[in-house]
Amino acid sequence: MSAELIPSILDLRHRLAEVRRAGRVIGFVPTMGALHAGHGSLIEMARQQTDCVVVSIFVNPTQFNQQKDYDLYPRPLAEDLEFCSARGVDIVFAPAVEEMYPRTQLVFVDVLRVTEHLCGKFRPGHFRGVTTVVLKLLNIVQPDRAYFGEKDAQQLAAIGRMVADLDLPVQIVAVPTVREADGLALSSRNRRLSPAERRIAPIVHRALQVAEEQIAAGATDPQQVKTKALATFHPFPQIRVEYLEIVDPLEMQPVERLDGPVRVAAAVWLGATRLIDNLLCRPATGQIERFT
Amino acid sequence: MSAELIPSILDLRHRLAEVRRAGRVIGFVPTMGALHAGHGSLIEMARQQTDCVVVSIFVNPTQFNQQKDYDLYPRPLAEDLEFCSARGVDIVFAPAVEEMYPRTQLVFVDVLRVTEHLCGKFRPGHFRGVTTVVLKLLNIVQPDRAYFGEKDAQQLAAIGRMVADLDLPVQIVAVPTVREADGLALSSRNRRLSPAERRIAPIVHRALQVAEEQIAAGATDPQQVKTKALATFHPFPQIRVEYLEIVDPLEMQPVERLDGPVRVAAAVWLGATRLIDNLLCRPATGQIERFT
Repeated sequence: MSAELIPSILDLRHRLAEVRRAGRVIGFVPTMGALHAGHGSLIEMARQQTDCVVVSIFVNPTQFNQQKDYDLYPRPLAEDLEFCSARGVDIVFAPAVEEMYPRTQLVFVDVLRVTEHLCGKFRPGHFRGVTTVVLKLLNIVQPDRAYFGEKDAQQLAAIGRMVADLDLPVQIVAVPTVREADGLALSSRNRRLSPAERRIAPIVHRALQVAEEQIAAGATDPQQVKTKALATFHPFPQIRVEYLEIVDPLEMQPVERLDGPVRVAAAVWLGATRLIDNLLCRPATGQIERFT
Repeated sequence: MSAELIPSILDLRHRLAEVRRAGRVIGFVPTMGALHAGHGSLIEMARQQTDCVVVSIFVNPTQFNQQKDYDLYPRPLAEDLEFCSARGVDIVFAPAVEEMYPRTQLVFVDVLRVTEHLCGKFRPGHFRGVTTVVLKLLNIVQPDRAYFGEKDAQQLAAIGRMVADLDLPVQIVAVPTVREADGLALSSRNRRLSPAERRIAPIVHRALQVAEEQIAAGATDPQQVKTKALATFHPFPQIRVEYLEIVDPLEMQPVERLDGPVRVAAAVWLGATRLIDNLLCRPATGQIERFT
């Protein structure tokens, strides 16, 4: 069956009011389109857990740092619709920019602390754009559950905290990163890599694995772990590391000692393409903090 | 009938889910307690327009600029409950501070531009505290309609813009200011006035009326109108004017010319008490801008 394409907020609200009245549980997968198997995994989990799956496709201008990145972001809407239909999505919400931002947006949500390091440090305003548009989408769709990939771990942490601190009536579901056979995390931006860059790209995951192995083996000093992980990139001068950090998984603050679960996260530039990836790592011993 | 007192978010959510399933329309009146006839007017309008009226009573610490003002804020809960019961309120939500802020609040909503002038200039962080707690309350109660007094006109404008820009599924209803016979706008802070201060207090409303009369008579220069209105305070050295401004009613920006509806707003200190008031004024002639 074809997914129903709805570009208007008002039409979507009316359509979902029916769904809600029928007692059906609504699952929501917000995306920027250019759908790949990572999104497929979010959709699949939503299909399993809810009765009506809504996918939004909206390339949000307020979260881009460079106009060029926004302009170049792929927008294969016909393919995306087919992708959704093939996977049993019920509704695709694909609003125009003017539908989402009909007037100058004056209202913004900030998630302090959680967005301070990692990508937050290198992409000023990015997370404000992300959390604000996600809040708008959650208010429009009013889903029971919303699905986000662990690939964007800092985004996931920020949205989780936003939902908690703003008492939003939605459950956030984290879905594991989907990877190519060689370890490269799926991303819509991967299609911009040249064949030569694509061959090098899995090294990001490899560097994170180096950190993971040391942490699992009992390393306690994050600086040492980072130094060894960063050494993985040395044979590849094509790669410019933006950051490689070890942070706590809730507030995303750099840790001073490895004595609980951590997120090892990296961002690198490969030519004109920025790649991010992360792994949740657990130490061999030591006190395990509750991850709630 | 007695209003039902609910201090827990979870209990309130369950109770309101029943109400919603029964198809009843929910009206919400957020307050900081110390209820007076102004709140009574909000409740009365909610009673007329909805089937189930929820009043929240929560003295929100994050919107106070001075610890002392927060500590001194009146909290007559038993009286407030009686007040609500006598007016047919169905549910009083009165959470503890720890219920509303169970962890360090890291998430904040800012309404730019609208909160820039007037009180926003003199109470740094105040509106961030207000809009954030109102958003939390709206997410907890999920009302169909929420009622706010025009007395706090900048707050009303900020919340209206927040609801619009965040696509919140709620209708905001503005309720006219209630005044004493001598013109003083009702406020929970009025009870702090000494008898001598109370006699002087109506001069705030009088100054706004002076502005209103000039605007209605065709004045076009806001500076001249302000000067004349401010002269009203000259015989009263007990009064320290914080601001008296003429702004557009939507984005609360000072106007350069009087050619549409404006909000004339003032804040003054009378002893240790800060009083605010405002009037929506329409010019005699000229192009009337649509107020939407």
